Amino acid sequence: MCRWMAYSGNPLPLDFLLLEPQHSLIDQSLSSKMAPKPTNGDGFGIGFYGRNHEPGIYHSIQPAWNDGNLRDMTHHIESSLALAHVRRSTGTPVQQSNCHPFRYCEWLFVHNGLIREFDRLRRDMAFEIAPELFPLVKGSTDSELMFYLALTYGLRDDPSAAMERVVGLIERCARREGIDNVLQMTVGIADSETLWSFRYSTERSSRTLFYSEDMGVMKEMYPEDLRGHAFTEKSVAVVSEPVGKRPEHWLEVPESSVVTVRNGQVAIRPFEPASA
Amino acid sequence: MCRWMAYSGNPLPLDFLLLEPQHSLIDQSLSSKMAPKPTNGDGFGIGFYGRNHEPGIYHSIQPAWNDGNLRDMTHHIESSLALAHVRRSTGTPVQQSNCHPFRYCEWLFVHNGLIREFDRLRRDMAFEIAPELFPLVKGSTDSELMFYLALTYGLRDDPSAAMERVVGLIERCARREGIDNVLQMTVGIADSETLWSFRYSTERSSRTLFYSEDMGVMKEMYPEDLRGHAFTEKSVAVVSEPVGKRPEHWLEVPESSVVTVRNGQVAIRPFEPASA
Amino acid sequence: MCRWMAYSGNPLPLDFLLLEPQHSLIDQSLSSKMAPKPTNGDGFGIGFYGRNHEPGIYHSIQPAWNDGNLRDMTHHIESSLALAHVRRSTGTPVQQSNCHPFRYCEWLFVHNGLIREFDRLRRDMAFEIAPELFPLVKGSTDSELMFYLALTYGLRDDPSAAMERVVGLIERCARREGIDNVLQMTVGIADSETLWSFRYSTERSSRTLFYSEDMGVMKEMYPEDLRGHAFTEKSVAVVSEPVGKRPEHWLEVPESSVVTVRNGQVAIRPFEPASA
Amino acid sequence: MCRWMAYSGNPLPLDFLLLEPQHSLIDQSLSSKMAPKPTNGDGFGIGFYGRNHEPGIYHSIQPAWNDGNLRDMTHHIESSLALAHVRRSTGTPVQQSNCHPFRYCEWLFVHNGLIREFDRLRRDMAFEIAPELFPLVKGSTDSELMFYLALTYGLRDDPSAAMERVVGLIERCARREGIDNVLQMTVGIADSETLWSFRYSTERSSRTLFYSEDMGVMKEMYPEDLRGHAFTEKSVAVVSEPVGKRPEHWLEVPESSVVTVRNGQVAIRPFEPASA
Repeated sequence: MCRWMAYSGNPLPLDFLLLEPQHSLIDQSLSSKMAPKPTNGDGFGIGFYGRNHEPGIYHSIQPAWNDGNLRDMTHHIESSLALAHVRRSTGTPVQQSNCHPFRYCEWLFVHNGLIREFDRLRRDMAFEIAPELFPLVKGSTDSELMFYLALTYGLRDDPSAAMERVVGLIERCARREGIDNVLQMTVGIADSETLWSFRYSTERSSRTLFYSEDMGVMKEMYPEDLRGHAFTEKSVAVVSEPVGKRPEHWLEVPESSVVTVRNGQVAIRPFEPASA
Repeated sequence: MCRWMAYSGNPLPLDFLLLEPQHSLIDQSLSSKMAPKPTNGDGFGIGFYGRNHEPGIYHSIQPAWNDGNLRDMTHHIESSLALAHVRRSTGTPVQQSNCHPFRYCEWLFVHNGLIREFDRLRRDMAFEIAPELFPLVKGSTDSELMFYLALTYGLRDDPSAAMERVVGLIERCARREGIDNVLQMTVGIADSETLWSFRYSTERSSRTLFYSEDMGVMKEMYPEDLRGHAFTEKSVAVVSEPVGKRPEHWLEVPESSVVTVRNGQVAIRPFEPASA
Repeated sequence: MCRWMAYSGNPLPLDFLLLEPQHSLIDQSLSSKMAPKPTNGDGFGIGFYGRNHEPGIYHSIQPAWNDGNLRDMTHHIESSLALAHVRRSTGTPVQQSNCHPFRYCEWLFVHNGLIREFDRLRRDMAFEIAPELFPLVKGSTDSELMFYLALTYGLRDDPSAAMERVVGLIERCARREGIDNVLQMTVGIADSETLWSFRYSTERSSRTLFYSEDMGVMKEMYPEDLRGHAFTEKSVAVVSEPVGKRPEHWLEVPESSVVTVRNGQVAIRPFEPASA
Repeated sequence: MCRWMAYSGNPLPLDFLLLEPQHSLIDQSLSSKMAPKPTNGDGFGIGFYGRNHEPGIYHSIQPAWNDGNLRDMTHHIESSLALAHVRRSTGTPVQQSNCHPFRYCEWLFVHNGLIREFDRLRRDMAFEIAPELFPLVKGSTDSELMFYLALTYGLRDDPSAAMERVVGLIERCARREGIDNVLQMTVGIADSETLWSFRYSTERSSRTLFYSEDMGVMKEMYPEDLRGHAFTEKSVAVVSEPVGKRPEHWLEVPESSVVTVRNGQVAIRPFEPASA
């Protein structure tokens, strides 16, 4: 059910973040340890802020572990804020438009988890999207609809409040349809400066999510010889499951909360679905 | 803007229909003569009735001319009723869920043409689709929405009447939005026994569509040595542009009409968008 | 390191053989139990004898578990002799020309295993291939070279003897280069009537290979309701690892041997690399 | 038979070079004007020097005009020396390992043209490749063998002399086999500082190749508003066919010659196949 990783800090080549660590995100595409199933081979995507405010995206329908361009592309792109995602489809087709991150102007969005019995809620969710945003939906995933609902509900002003409204809507629709435990989500959202990371599920037993408190944890992702020239005090990572050989040094994002990272500062606040 | 071909008749291997004729549909993917642009290289698809009522589909995001499996697959599948389509995207992504034919139970649907300023009409069209059909939409094309609208409007009982309602709806929505000449379409629809072929455009100057009146025309698609063991009296083909070296022997489907082929019988009727 | 399956018997739809069993080959692409690594997601292929002596092939660079055409294609193709293969690359690119089965005229070839330090042996192997066959090599795998070497050494007359010469050559080249335990292989070869299955490794500790002695084992691959209308006394399957929920009913192909299946008859003989 | 473009000059984003000009290389993938056939839709590739001496490569089996990642990738990568190539296969498979540029250490290589009856020469050419380079051949094209032959013959010391030996070899082999007019080629070679561009054919009637003498020609590739912030005096481009709306301002590379571009200096010398 997908794995993702976000990085905020000094500019680094993407391969250093995604390929070189031990048990890296790309390794997790082949054999994740904490996901319900180990293989996340139904495509992947990388979003990164580089030359300007609008982020670049690379989407592939190949598994990340065998994509022929991944190493070269990530080696030649540096970023100070990036989101990467390896996908395990829960039923929708393997196509680039279903790969995360989704993008709207300077915003990026990744999701791990699912909406149970999504087919029964899809139309109500789609209807609620602002008409001017509706034509931008290109794929068929629950995740993409969540993103456009968040944009409809004010993501650009307050991502946390917008996501609380999105989850409130999904849970109300689910109650009406009699669907239990409708939502599992860890979500990463970024604009060009800030990273928001959400961990929530209707059943309050959410998929794992971790963050690094200090750059020491991140340095431990690497063999000795790669540690010197990398992270600064302001480097923070958020990951579905720990990267590196010291998983115990990562901090768990608390249940039902949102972590905000900006300029090296980490803030954690409770996440509460909006009632209406 | 796509090319398509339909065949109804005695069972034949699909490669005989799609690959071996001169200026075959696969040739038309590389260099069509009658389309506004010659290249139809944004994926393709084949639907065919074989072992049972539900048709098989092969969709590819490669151009038909270089797909590595096309020759082998078509050589080993025989069909008495088939629809094939080479795509030229008018803006939506190249992904299998945007490849024609679309399928619902025993029904197949292909479309050549476009809805002008589709983004402005997409939401209204989507919400007119019957709620139980809505979750089945997997791609992002105008064509797929037309198909699900037709199913909503009674395709399974009367394809012609359903398509007249679909076109009526699109043209009403377009008038409301001030969009001129909104629709260009040739459409092929099949169940396991009958083939319906529509030619229509709002401006009454529609993309080309032709049919073969007798098997002699079809035999002329082939070099001498391939003609013997092929078609019977009941074989009929419908094509976006003539196949074979005798284009003048094909009959043009009249403007604003629908051709029905069943058991070798061809019937032509006027097509008139429904007023409400 | 790949999984494969071969079937010889009464004509059956390929989906019945490849998709419907419990722990089917397609399941094994995602989570094999007996391979050194569980994921075989680097493309797959199916070869089958159908309309005529030359077999058809379907090759895909997608993982078998998410290929959008696999279900439809296999549902509409019946075969009395078929070979299917899910690939785990040992370093060579994921491309259709590296997918098994390989084909030459009426012959098919699949391989599970590897040649250790293949790069050091590749040139010697390549130049041993008969000059008239050399231009037919399209990919870059050790497996394809083994196939063309076998053809060079008389595969068309005596597949077992040819494979014994191929292995002899590889082991001689390896000795010269100082490479230990050079070869791991289970290999499936078919023409339109006979299936040969080899199990061998230089270290005499070969990858697993099993066969079904009677159709009862094959029926057990399926839930109760699917058992009735399937296999005859002449049905035999060979598999990298048992399919179905009764793995203990499959028979292990002995170390260093070749199993020949023809018209329901199974014969097992020792396999001994040729000395020169 | 392919189109290519090379750029040497001040660092520029690749999209500015490849996508924004009028009749750009990407347009030429869909509708080239000077190639024997207009469509070059059998994959493409881009090589570029960026962070360090070893160039990056992006290879795609999609047509360049519909690749979903091309715009984003090229927008975020700047280069002062780049080679791009859109492919039209002359028979070999559409796979990433057959896409140009080919790479060895800091060297890149693109080829437009073909070796006639390549299958008859392939083995002799392969045999001539230095044994330590032989295992690096990953695809099945004539072009890749030419590159590894050039490396065998001293490309790293003197690209022109090496290419003269490659062509000499091919023509000798062809004479032995009785193949007329064996070679058509325009070839681009780069290391991190210099660009070599060859135009040659056995029949001395070679595929087109052009270069820009001054940056004014390059500015004319763009609409007025994009011209200001781009090229310096040292910018030079080499193209299979002119880019921009002033094709007459480009200079033709003379028949049987090699153009060397380094630090804005252009030198042209005759190209003469080596006799042995």
